[in-house]
This record gives sequence, C-alpha cells and structure tokens, in this order.
Amino acid sequence: MSTPSVTAAILIIGNEILSGRTHDKNTHWLAGKLTELGINTREARVVPDVKAVIIETVRELADRFDYVFTTGGIGPTHDDITAASMAECFHTTLELNTEAHQRLRDHYHEELNEARLKMGYIPVGARLIDNPVSAAPGFVMENVYVMAGIPSIMQAMFNSIQHQLVGGAPTLSKTVTGATSEGMIATELTAIQDQYPNVDIGSYPFFADGKLGVSIVLRGLEQAQIDAAAAEVRGLLEAKGGVYDRNDRGEAIT
Amino acid sequence: MSTPSVTAAILIIGNEILSGRTHDKNTHWLAGKLTELGINTREARVVPDVKAVIIETVRELADRFDYVFTTGGIGPTHDDITAASMAECFHTTLELNTEAHQRLRDHYHEELNEARLKMGYIPVGARLIDNPVSAAPGFVMENVYVMAGIPSIMQAMFNSIQHQLVGGAPTLSKTVTGATSEGMIATELTAIQDQYPNVDIGSYPFFADGKLGVSIVLRGLEQAQIDAAAAEVRGLLEAKGGVYDRNDRGEAIT
Repeated sequence: MSTPSVTAAILIIGNEILSGRTHDKNTHWLAGKLTELGINTREARVVPDVKAVIIETVRELADRFDYVFTTGGIGPTHDDITAASMAECFHTTLELNTEAHQRLRDHYHEELNEARLKMGYIPVGARLIDNPVSAAPGFVMENVYVMAGIPSIMQAMFNSIQHQLVGGAPTLSKTVTGATSEGMIATELTAIQDQYPNVDIGSYPFFADGKLGVSIVLRGLEQAQIDAAAAEVRGLLEAKGGVYDRNDRGEAIT
Repeated sequence: MSTPSVTAAILIIGNEILSGRTHDKNTHWLAGKLTELGINTREARVVPDVKAVIIETVRELADRFDYVFTTGGIGPTHDDITAASMAECFHTTLELNTEAHQRLRDHYHEELNEARLKMGYIPVGARLIDNPVSAAPGFVMENVYVMAGIPSIMQAMFNSIQHQLVGGAPTLSKTVTGATSEGMIATELTAIQDQYPNVDIGSYPFFADGKLGVSIVLRGLEQAQIDAAAAEVRGLLEAKGGVYDRNDRGEAIT
C-alpha cells in the first residue's frame, strides 16, 4: 500500500504489564488516536522499569520513527524512573522546572511534600505536557512525548498536545464482514489484493454469538480505490455465505 | 531484586493492533501464564505484517531471551506471512508438513482447498503445536513458539505446550492496598525498598468507585522476605489513611 509518511512508536514502561498484573489499555487507545491523526504506528513495545533498557529503547525508537509516545513511570515513588532515564537518554540532567513547581504548588498547597516535588523535576530543555487531572506534568524531549501510565491521565495529556502533532494523509478504511471462513475466500481475496496494490486488505476471522465470520478491512489513502475494492470483497462474501450487517465488533456496517 | 533466570519475550504480529482496530488481549494472558510458570517476560512487542520487520525482530528477541512467543499471521489469507517469515529467519524453507497435512484433511475433509492447505506449510525442522480448536497447527523453531492470533486458539495452543517449558523459581507476590495517594507514602516506601533489596516493590495508584488509592505489589523469590516487607508496607498504609480489604482490581486481600 502507499505508506503514510508520518510514523510513530508507542512505548509502555512498567513491570506490572510484563508480569501480567495489569492489562495495558494505553496502546490500543493511542494507536486509534494516532490513526485518526494520520500518524502511522509502526511498533509498540512494553519494557520493564529498568533504566538501561528504557534509555536504549527510547534512543532506538526516537531514531527510527517520527514520534515516540511513552506512558508510565513519572509518578512520585522509587519505581518511577522515566524522567531520570529520559534525561540520561538526551545527555542532560533533571532540574526543578519552575512552571512544573508552580503547578504542583497550586494543586497540592501545603501537602506538597518532598516526594510530590520529585514530579516537578523535568529534564533540562523539555517542554511540559499539561496534566488537567492531577497537575504533575508530562513532557516532550525532541520527538519523544512522555506521559503518565494511568489511562485517564494519559488520555487527558494526549488530548492537550494532539494539536501539536503533524500527521500525514489520514488512512481511510472500510470493513466488510461475511458469514464465512477465511479458507473459503483466501484465493479470491489474494486476487483482489493483487488488483488493488494501493489498498491494504486485512482479513480478521472471529467467533461471535456462536457464529464464525470474517471481517475484511480495506485501508488506504484513496477513497475511490477503497470503495472499488470493497465492492469486489462484498461480491465475494455474498457468493460465499452472505454479508453480515454488523462487523465482529458489533458495529453496524453501511 | 533477584532476577529470575528464565526470560521470555512476547511478539504480537498484526497491522490490526497497530491501527487501533483490535485490542490485543494476548500479551496480558501470556504474561500472566508465563509468570505462573516461573518465566519472566522481559519485553513485549507489536510489529506489522511486514516480512523484513518480523524476521529482524524474531532474530533479535530469540537471541536475547530464553523463549519467544509469537501470535498472529498463521492463517490462510495473503496477509498471513508469519510462517514464511520464520522459515527465512531460520535459513530454511516451508514444506507441506506430513502430520499437519493429515490434521487438516481430518478436520476439513472435502473442504480442504488450496488456501487451507497453505496452513500445512511449516518451516523444515519445526515441531508442531496442537490446535484443538481449528486443526491448523502452530509450530516451534528453536526457542520460538509460533501461535495463532485469535485469543481462544492461541490459549488452547499455549496450554498444549506449556508442560514443555522449563521455568525458573516462580516469582511470588503479595499486594497491599491503601486509601492514600502515592505522594503521601513515597519517601517511607523508598526506605522499605532500600531495606529489602531482594523484594521488588511496585506502586500502582488508581481511582476506583470515586476513591483514590494505591496498590503496593511486592514480588520476589523468598516468601519470608516478601511477608516481612509487606508487614512494613501495611503498617505504613495504616498510618496514612488505612488499608483496603480489596485491591484496585476488586480482589479480596487476605
């Protein structure tokens, strides 16, 4: 397919995801938002709270992709080491950021203790990301956006900076879902894919309500090409068991 | 903390995760199972259906970790390229595996067409992984376990091979949850962590039922050390707002 030119990686930082304790919701949410903005997530990674690993991973991803979005590890406790790792990654140090300090004072008043003050220490040269939920900011270093791990706070942070992101042409998509199995349509689907090289055709089988089905997702930059390929897919599915009016996520298909 | 000696990486293969269309459930499930088996997941990664990326990533992860578990891309359609990528990764080719062929014949009978037969092509030298749900097998090449992307099938596959995995000492854990915020306990918690270097203490704040709280998770290889550190954490939380009898996942805490 035509490759959208703006790329991103998502980096989830946290032992709790890798131990299976916590189910990461941030990758899915961020990937959806980035797609809407015309930014193509090319990789997502989960790493533990280990400074050397965080530094090495951020360097690699920041070099390979236009944007990197990290979540986790910017709280007040001893296992929150993302800010210190980022400073080292960008060959700088942490300093008590004047603006961050003021926001923490305004939020915590007399309850701003030493532990909470830690959240005001930001790498020198970073730009703050607003935290409308609990004040302690995220920050941006070059092309790396450092956000909180709690989904509600991460989402508020992302919403506060998304206007700063420059996306490419948005990827358009259409889904056709049929009452058949992949093995019944694979050969013909390959022929359709070959006929429409600029449309990326994905096939996602599912079991739902005791029914077997397959959702064909057509993605690309040109609506006309997507529509033409989708019409062929619809014809194929109608010939092989019928088209569902809802996809595997229960969404109505028009 | 004492590092468990058996490590793993999870590799999720699929454009649909990176576009935000599908919410990956496999990482969380696998990470939990591996923890139970004494296998320490050190990284999880999501990559697109791009052969060069799959090959490079599998090589890197197989080299760095004891086990690699992949999910996705072993179906019959054109976008299922994991088996071909794995063959190339291990400098071999795909062949119609006799045993896999028989299983597909037994499952599909006269409906075994060319597209479905593709699922019988397995890298030369691979060992099959049973698929009790839909016959088409996964496979093992050296330390890489290749499984389906559909969660129910992946789980059945993993359950069929887990007795073959050799774990290290299982990581034990205990959770103490308190009615306070991280910033109120961080300094004292650091002191507890410093006192118990062989216990890995993680702090996970949450909002639930309108209540702010924090779950402290203590992990390690020695139950006595975990219990001793947990008692100190419990004392700290009792002094700072009280201990909840349920954690942030609603589970009873004893």
